[in-house]
Amino acid sequence: MNKAEMKEAILEAKFEKGLKWSDIAKAAGLSAEYTCSACLGMNHLEKQNAEAVAEVLGLGNEISTELQRFPHKIWSQAIPTDPVIYRWYEMVGVYGETIKELINEKFGDGIMSAIDFTMNIDKQEDPKGDRVLVTISGKFLPYKSW
Amino acid sequence: MNKAEMKEAILEAKFEKGLKWSDIAKAAGLSAEYTCSACLGMNHLEKQNAEAVAEVLGLGNEISTELQRFPHKIWSQAIPTDPVIYRWYEMVGVYGETIKELINEKFGDGIMSAIDFTMNIDKQEDPKGDRVLVTISGKFLPYKSW
Amino acid sequence: MNKAEMKEAILEAKFEKGLKWSDIAKAAGLSAEYTCSACLGMNHLEKQNAEAVAEVLGLGNEISTELQRFPHKIWSQAIPTDPVIYRWYEMVGVYGETIKELINEKFGDGIMSAIDFTMNIDKQEDPKGDRVLVTISGKFLPYKSW
Amino acid sequence: MNKAEMKEAILEAKFEKGLKWSDIAKAAGLSAEYTCSACLGMNHLEKQNAEAVAEVLGLGNEISTELQRFPHKIWSQAIPTDPVIYRWYEMVGVYGETIKELINEKFGDGIMSAIDFTMNIDKQEDPKGDRVLVTISGKFLPYKSW
Amino acid sequence: MNKAEMKEAILEAKFEKGLKWSDIAKAAGLSAEYTCSACLGMNHLEKQNAEAVAEVLGLGNEISTELQRFPHKIWSQAIPTDPVIYRWYEMVGVYGETIKELINEKFGDGIMSAIDFTMNIDKQEDPKGDRVLVTISGKFLPYKSW
Amino acid sequence: MNKAEMKEAILEAKFEKGLKWSDIAKAAGLSAEYTCSACLGMNHLEKQNAEAVAEVLGLGNEISTELQRFPHKIWSQAIPTDPVIYRWYEMVGVYGETIKELINEKFGDGIMSAIDFTMNIDKQEDPKGDRVLVTISGKFLPYKSW
Amino acid sequence: MNKAEMKEAILEAKFEKGLKWSDIAKAAGLSAEYTCSACLGMNHLEKQNAEAVAEVLGLGNEISTELQRFPHKIWSQAIPTDPVIYRWYEMVGVYGETIKELINEKFGDGIMSAIDFTMNIDKQEDPKGDRVLVTISGKFLPYKSW
Amino acid sequence: MNKAEMKEAILEAKFEKGLKWSDIAKAAGLSAEYTCSACLGMNHLEKQNAEAVAEVLGLGNEISTELQRFPHKIWSQAIPTDPVIYRWYEMVGVYGETIKELINEKFGDGIMSAIDFTMNIDKQEDPKGDRVLVTISGKFLPYKSW
Amino acid sequence: MNKAEMKEAILEAKFEKGLKWSDIAKAAGLSAEYTCSACLGMNHLEKQNAEAVAEVLGLGNEISTELQRFPHKIWSQAIPTDPVIYRWYEMVGVYGETIKELINEKFGDGIMSAIDFTMNIDKQEDPKGDRVLVTISGKFLPYKSW
Amino acid sequence: MNKAEMKEAILEAKFEKGLKWSDIAKAAGLSAEYTCSACLGMNHLEKQNAEAVAEVLGLGNEISTELQRFPHKIWSQAIPTDPVIYRWYEMVGVYGETIKELINEKFGDGIMSAIDFTMNIDKQEDPKGDRVLVTISGKFLPYKSW
Repeated sequence: MNKAEMKEAILEAKFEKGLKWSDIAKAAGLSAEYTCSACLGMNHLEKQNAEAVAEVLGLGNEISTELQRFPHKIWSQAIPTDPVIYRWYEMVGVYGETIKELINEKFGDGIMSAIDFTMNIDKQEDPKGDRVLVTISGKFLPYKSW
Repeated sequence: MNKAEMKEAILEAKFEKGLKWSDIAKAAGLSAEYTCSACLGMNHLEKQNAEAVAEVLGLGNEISTELQRFPHKIWSQAIPTDPVIYRWYEMVGVYGETIKELINEKFGDGIMSAIDFTMNIDKQEDPKGDRVLVTISGKFLPYKSW
Repeated sequence: MNKAEMKEAILEAKFEKGLKWSDIAKAAGLSAEYTCSACLGMNHLEKQNAEAVAEVLGLGNEISTELQRFPHKIWSQAIPTDPVIYRWYEMVGVYGETIKELINEKFGDGIMSAIDFTMNIDKQEDPKGDRVLVTISGKFLPYKSW
Repeated sequence: MNKAEMKEAILEAKFEKGLKWSDIAKAAGLSAEYTCSACLGMNHLEKQNAEAVAEVLGLGNEISTELQRFPHKIWSQAIPTDPVIYRWYEMVGVYGETIKELINEKFGDGIMSAIDFTMNIDKQEDPKGDRVLVTISGKFLPYKSW
Repeated sequence: MNKAEMKEAILEAKFEKGLKWSDIAKAAGLSAEYTCSACLGMNHLEKQNAEAVAEVLGLGNEISTELQRFPHKIWSQAIPTDPVIYRWYEMVGVYGETIKELINEKFGDGIMSAIDFTMNIDKQEDPKGDRVLVTISGKFLPYKSW
Repeated sequence: MNKAEMKEAILEAKFEKGLKWSDIAKAAGLSAEYTCSACLGMNHLEKQNAEAVAEVLGLGNEISTELQRFPHKIWSQAIPTDPVIYRWYEMVGVYGETIKELINEKFGDGIMSAIDFTMNIDKQEDPKGDRVLVTISGKFLPYKSW
Repeated sequence: MNKAEMKEAILEAKFEKGLKWSDIAKAAGLSAEYTCSACLGMNHLEKQNAEAVAEVLGLGNEISTELQRFPHKIWSQAIPTDPVIYRWYEMVGVYGETIKELINEKFGDGIMSAIDFTMNIDKQEDPKGDRVLVTISGKFLPYKSW
Repeated sequence: MNKAEMKEAILEAKFEKGLKWSDIAKAAGLSAEYTCSACLGMNHLEKQNAEAVAEVLGLGNEISTELQRFPHKIWSQAIPTDPVIYRWYEMVGVYGETIKELINEKFGDGIMSAIDFTMNIDKQEDPKGDRVLVTISGKFLPYKSW
Repeated sequence: MNKAEMKEAILEAKFEKGLKWSDIAKAAGLSAEYTCSACLGMNHLEKQNAEAVAEVLGLGNEISTELQRFPHKIWSQAIPTDPVIYRWYEMVGVYGETIKELINEKFGDGIMSAIDFTMNIDKQEDPKGDRVLVTISGKFLPYKSW
Repeated sequence: MNKAEMKEAILEAKFEKGLKWSDIAKAAGLSAEYTCSACLGMNHLEKQNAEAVAEVLGLGNEISTELQRFPHKIWSQAIPTDPVIYRWYEMVGVYGETIKELINEKFGDGIMSAIDFTMNIDKQEDPKGDRVLVTISGKFLPYKSW
């Protein structure tokens, strides 16, 4: 079994059981965002969390074991085509330099970590049309001189 | 004058006057994020805001006029190399499908707009290392059938 | 079953039954354009429409279920090679800036949505050679400042 | 003088005179879409039209001569980044095969010409948000066997 | 059955029967060039021609049906590597602008069609080494203004 | 002076003098196709031919000298965008394998030279629309074993 | 059977029989370099040579037949990664213009053929470290004017 | 002064003085191949050699100094377009694996150095057409385990 | 069996037996780094080492044989996406020129070998967060003139 | 002044003064590696260090100011061509997965930072040929779940 097979099995089981990512996340004791990313093969879970995820999905040991393996994070489209993901790519293109300017101004020379990092996606109801509210928190890492 | 020359003139004036993006934004009556992106040539300002920005920077009419022009949003690196911006590109690669899954689950089939959109970048003090807190709100747009 | 298998099964059934896209669309209660795009795996159908499509094609539940799943919109050729599709790519290359100029002039700074969007393809008879008449309507989305 | 310099001179004169593309097109006796594309360097104008365009813009002989030259149609971004133009690229990616299916079904094996071709861009007022209405007519060209 | 499988079956049958493209073309009542391109999956044949091709190759109905389907013209190498095909790519690189200059001079602004198009490949005996003689005829299509 | 400057000077002089490629070619004592390609910087001319070309264009020694230099044949677009040249690229994509099949069948394993090579472009009048007639003759070069 | 399957079968048989390329070449009556390239699928062998190769490897008719087919020369890595092959790519990058300068100086404007071509690879013993000695002979082909 | 300016100055002086690479190489006391590559900016010369080259070309100190600088070896075309250089690229594509097989067989696992390396280009007269004879000698470097 | 299958078999056996790379390396009598790279298919092992590796993993002859074959070193991502490997790619981008400057200054014109090369990866405990300590030793190879 | 102009000015002054990177580093009170990278425009220096560097090079205020600006880290070659830098790229390609395996085994799931990072380059004398010894220390950053 590999991550791609695991992902397919999880998505199928989730669909058949009519579960939501928040249900699976609750079982894992983690956020829906992190749990989902692990189920898609982009993060790993600790043993206990992995077993809880496999159980709620009615899947066996193999899935739990695979969820614990450290993933190779690979994406094949340098520029994503799906409109949901492309809009984020576009956001990085349009606002990337702005983000850099403001981080540099507020923190000094350094980066915002994509490793020590959390992301939450919420629904913001709005009479003019609901909005997606995303909150991202990444540790600031200063460049080190030596 | 074009956007690239405008950007250079603004960055130079900002540096010489020792202004922060928040100072310029206050003059514009807009957020630091949007104001910065307009000064970098990735958005336009309305006449009144543009004149205020030019004034606080001690720059003339040409800058104000250029700030009002609608930009062609162009970036030359399909995969950005600067580490600050690359980490965001990586985030889209690693979490893009997760974002899609959760938006689809909470809102149905559709996208999060990168046009009707706001982004705020804040400093979150933390004894284990300060964090960059980013809040993004984008309107949900459902796919339309016909 | 995935979208690629669904597409293959639909095209085969359509061929064997001698149906036209307009026949299938009538069953779906939608336009031929949207219905066709859903059958090719680029859009989803609501339950009722999906079942009607599966039925008219003499296909079972699996197809109907797959038609309802939200697609990942992926195309593998950054520059399409088939001459029909390339001509459209060329049109975007040649007239893209013109489209931008005219939208900006008539509506202000913003974009034409590719999500809240309809497209119709008709035959225009002409003694000098028939013509393809395409009508596209996309919602204007103004850039938002904040 | 080359097409790039011509384009810059025209855009500047248009801005200073406060003209719209429809004003320039009226002088040329052509549509705003075609006139605009010629002024951006992507088509040529016949002598009489070119002179009328130069005149209404208050520009001299050089511009008129350059407008008459047959352009090399070159675009440097295989995948455009400006959101207005990208949305059209996306439309070709998502609906390209659908367009091919429907043209093939209605006309037989062949293409829709991007040479014998017209495009019109109109504003469609709508209480739920104005829409961009684009009408494209391209001659059908059947593949020839021999 | 798809075009790739059809191509493989035809090449195998052609090899086993010791047929030449000219033999197959004669059966089809078309040129060797067009017939070959259809057998390789890059054009379609009308019913009668397709059946004649299948028959001369001793192949069944499936092949005849597949030959009649309109192909998606796809090539995977943007720059071909096989020396025979690369030399043609090189020719387009070296002489492309020359071709454009001469077509423009003789015909006006427009293109040479690759759809209403014929190509013949002949052997020209020559004591200094035989030559490949290629004759291509493409309809001139003038750019249309509107 | 380099080939790019030479090309620009020649095109300007040709335009001002109202010369055709066939006029310049007559002076050179060569075909219009080869002469044009040399003037665009893609081939070189022998001394006598180069001087005749410079003279008919009213250009000096520098141009004649530059025309004699052996060019570095460079094109910057791996996939050309101008429609005239793209159609030729497409022709190589669609018919490349066909060309290979027929050359191999008629001549054996080898290639058609793009070096020992001639190309002629003629106008073929036709009541259904004039046609571009292109005749290409390239020496067959058999692969050598050793 | 195709060239890829043939290559795999030959490499396996060669390994099991403990043969060297020079042994196989001797059977073929050709050089080790050409024979090896044919066995890897990049050249073809005449009937007699192909049968001798198949025989010495203990392989049947299928292999002999496949060795006789004219190959499509395809490589998938535009820039090779294996260090042995990359060093040759680097050599072309570093010395390509030097090679061109010297060929042009010694022979005039033209190329060195990669078709009428031989290559030999020998071991040159050297106390400071053995050296690979490569001798390449390619026919000079002058550019032809017309 | 940089390597590009140096190269241009050297090529111009060489042309005006009517020197051959072999003349310049004799002055340098090195081969024509190495000397040429240094003059094109792809290698450096020791002080004494550099001064001799500058002198024979009638160029001053700046050239001599620049010739001594260690170059950054940069080429901008991943796949070269000039036919002379492309044929070498093709040779690497077609024969790369053959070279690897034979080096591995004769020397063991390792590479042929492109650093400790010599290349000579000679003219081989031949009644059937002169040939370019290239001799390359590169040190074998075995992979090291640890 | 090929290198990819070998790698999969080894990783599975390693996981099931709960072995570390250092355990396998000890059996091989080589470093963990080199042993690991050979098991991943990027280097070969001598017979004795290969047999020891196969034995400690409880794998048979096929694995041992495959470990001895000289690999084709191929990686499919020109720019790696996994964050661990990307950070190294970034390091080469940011510090590549610095490395070149310092090697050139300390050793003269030449390179650091990636063939005669060792790499060790150690854990450096640190109260502010453990560090990865990498030590690389590559032979300096001076450019050779001739 | 920008980073590129700064770099050029520093390299010229360094050459004229005959300074080594270690001399400049001593003035800066930092390592040669970090100082060099800042002078090449890939890192910034604190005010005091920047002034010391400018002084030792005999350069003025502008250089010192520019050295203090936070750089945009941009490299234009996705795959570097200079052999010194390419060998490092190759090392990442060949050993990237090995590095990941060993870091994961010793530290758990996470990365080695390229931000909190030091690199030292030393000369290791060796009778069989001097070696470049590189020592890199990067902080381990564990992936965070949430």
